[in-house]
Amino acid sequence: MQFKNDLLLRAAKGEDIERYPVWLMRQAGRILPEYRAIRNSISGFKELVETPELAAEVTVQPVDLLGVDAAIIFSDILVIPEAMGLTYQMIEKKGPHFEKTIRNEDDLKKYGETNFDVEDRLGYVKEAIELTVKELNGRVPVIGFAGAPWTIFCYMVEGGGSKTFSNSRKLLYTNPTLAHDLLSRITDLTIRYLKMQIKAGANLVQVFDSWAGILGRDQYNEFGLKYMNRIADAIDEVPVTLFAKGAYASLPHLATSNCETIGLDWNMDPYTVREMVGEVKTLQGNLDPCALYASHQDVEKMTNSLLKSFKSKRHIVNLGHGVYPDIDPDKVRTFIKTVKSYEL
Amino acid sequence: MQFKNDLLLRAAKGEDIERYPVWLMRQAGRILPEYRAIRNSISGFKELVETPELAAEVTVQPVDLLGVDAAIIFSDILVIPEAMGLTYQMIEKKGPHFEKTIRNEDDLKKYGETNFDVEDRLGYVKEAIELTVKELNGRVPVIGFAGAPWTIFCYMVEGGGSKTFSNSRKLLYTNPTLAHDLLSRITDLTIRYLKMQIKAGANLVQVFDSWAGILGRDQYNEFGLKYMNRIADAIDEVPVTLFAKGAYASLPHLATSNCETIGLDWNMDPYTVREMVGEVKTLQGNLDPCALYASHQDVEKMTNSLLKSFKSKRHIVNLGHGVYPDIDPDKVRTFIKTVKSYEL
Repeated sequence: MQFKNDLLLRAAKGEDIERYPVWLMRQAGRILPEYRAIRNSISGFKELVETPELAAEVTVQPVDLLGVDAAIIFSDILVIPEAMGLTYQMIEKKGPHFEKTIRNEDDLKKYGETNFDVEDRLGYVKEAIELTVKELNGRVPVIGFAGAPWTIFCYMVEGGGSKTFSNSRKLLYTNPTLAHDLLSRITDLTIRYLKMQIKAGANLVQVFDSWAGILGRDQYNEFGLKYMNRIADAIDEVPVTLFAKGAYASLPHLATSNCETIGLDWNMDPYTVREMVGEVKTLQGNLDPCALYASHQDVEKMTNSLLKSFKSKRHIVNLGHGVYPDIDPDKVRTFIKTVKSYEL
Repeated sequence: MQFKNDLLLRAAKGEDIERYPVWLMRQAGRILPEYRAIRNSISGFKELVETPELAAEVTVQPVDLLGVDAAIIFSDILVIPEAMGLTYQMIEKKGPHFEKTIRNEDDLKKYGETNFDVEDRLGYVKEAIELTVKELNGRVPVIGFAGAPWTIFCYMVEGGGSKTFSNSRKLLYTNPTLAHDLLSRITDLTIRYLKMQIKAGANLVQVFDSWAGILGRDQYNEFGLKYMNRIADAIDEVPVTLFAKGAYASLPHLATSNCETIGLDWNMDPYTVREMVGEVKTLQGNLDPCALYASHQDVEKMTNSLLKSFKSKRHIVNLGHGVYPDIDPDKVRTFIKTVKSYEL
């Protein structure tokens, strides 16, 4: 595919760029009135995820309405446990809830199935990407994504969010064999799922490890990073971005991973991380999503100050976490405009 | 006071010790059937906090029942916002909930009062400590505590727990003057509160910054550590422990603080932290609380391995977070026994 704007891909690969590319995690979502109009016209969040025409429409919205340099497919990381047999409900203001969980070998037998055709169960994501690619017609690249095995594992064991994720972490001590078995299954399915996305037209894939930060370095390396690495090793069709939120102590290990880009949360200092990982990786991030509550003038100032802290061209600009739903879209526009007008 | 066992205080001050002292965050609490019996005999958690005889009784329980080297007064960090006029309810399985919050100057006028006699409103904590000291009769030291200003600020602004604490963090961008005003008030009151605890007999005080990890380094230094330091500077009667959970990047700054001991969460590697802070501070922690779900044999092994990683005597052994309520007390005993029999 020839792109009108392929800054994202060039930055990911470490090629020359004329300015930093910029996009936002959760850019397709509740900050846009145009998204909320579609969301309110249907029964729920999951219907939106599972209806390719609508998923594609909200995926393209921020390209038109905000001017970002990439579209990220509108979907949910929890489609993977669902495909394995663990259905969930998305409860407004509370988050996901799973009726059943995996805590022992019997549960794993019942809800750990991965021996199926991924297109059969997740074909709606393939269709949504194909429609998005068609609609975008080369304007910007499309980002596919999946949850990291450790994060998906946490949801499958815990059954939802948690303050401590102590059930998930307990398994690592009481039954590491079961934990590795489940993590391996999630990993294998995730690789097939991402390859399906790439075949459908995703030009880069990002793996989100939202709960990386609840493990210490050694445990994260064993139960988290190991499986992220397996994914990065398996994907050679397109650049891969690994985002391990809160895994500060594992950054030097991430630097040796087979990925092109490392995502930084807003607590990670880009300068320090650059010192740690060197020039071999692109860094993505990491303005504090709360910074967008500030005045336009301050958003501009903080964005410029972030960009000035970069000591290399190997950067993709983003927030350090998903944009919060009550942020004024005009503040997002100021953020994007500032990045676009910053001279390299 | 002459102690039969003053290991905790000697370790905190960097004096010689014959073995590492050990205690557990949340040791007075739901893991003990003897605690649950008392808790079930009354109306709720807050009644327990506010009844000195009962608070003292559950404070002493783990000294008798687990053999820890220190008692920590049974109380709650949220007594501070309550004293300032923001009452809260402790909702079973959900955590604290405040009816009112502080989001603007008007709120601060209404719920930010600190101009009162601390003994008038928090005298029950003083009495609980006095009773504890009497009951312990010098067997082990008593630890007093308070929440760090940043963590208390989060509860007062948010009104409870949160996944993102975006309301609290928003204020840092939109109204830093208000934020500093509230943080200063909390700090002043906390200093008076801790001095009351010391007068009542607390031999060491610990300041808990549970939400330190949601801020990046620079913001934590400005809105978090600054006020922790102010407390450490004001307390010279007894050793001070600062516990900034998740504030990995601020550890070098903590090393210059006027405290004796730095608490480590279970994600921080003691060896790395020792390299960062040097020999000037005692380190406290940091076995993963989930490790106590493992077998007795594994608990012993992991505890020994933690102790072997210490390159100095300046350590107080603890978990890296509060003990989880469903942990078998016998596993805690194995942890404690292993520490006590470890030869220095």
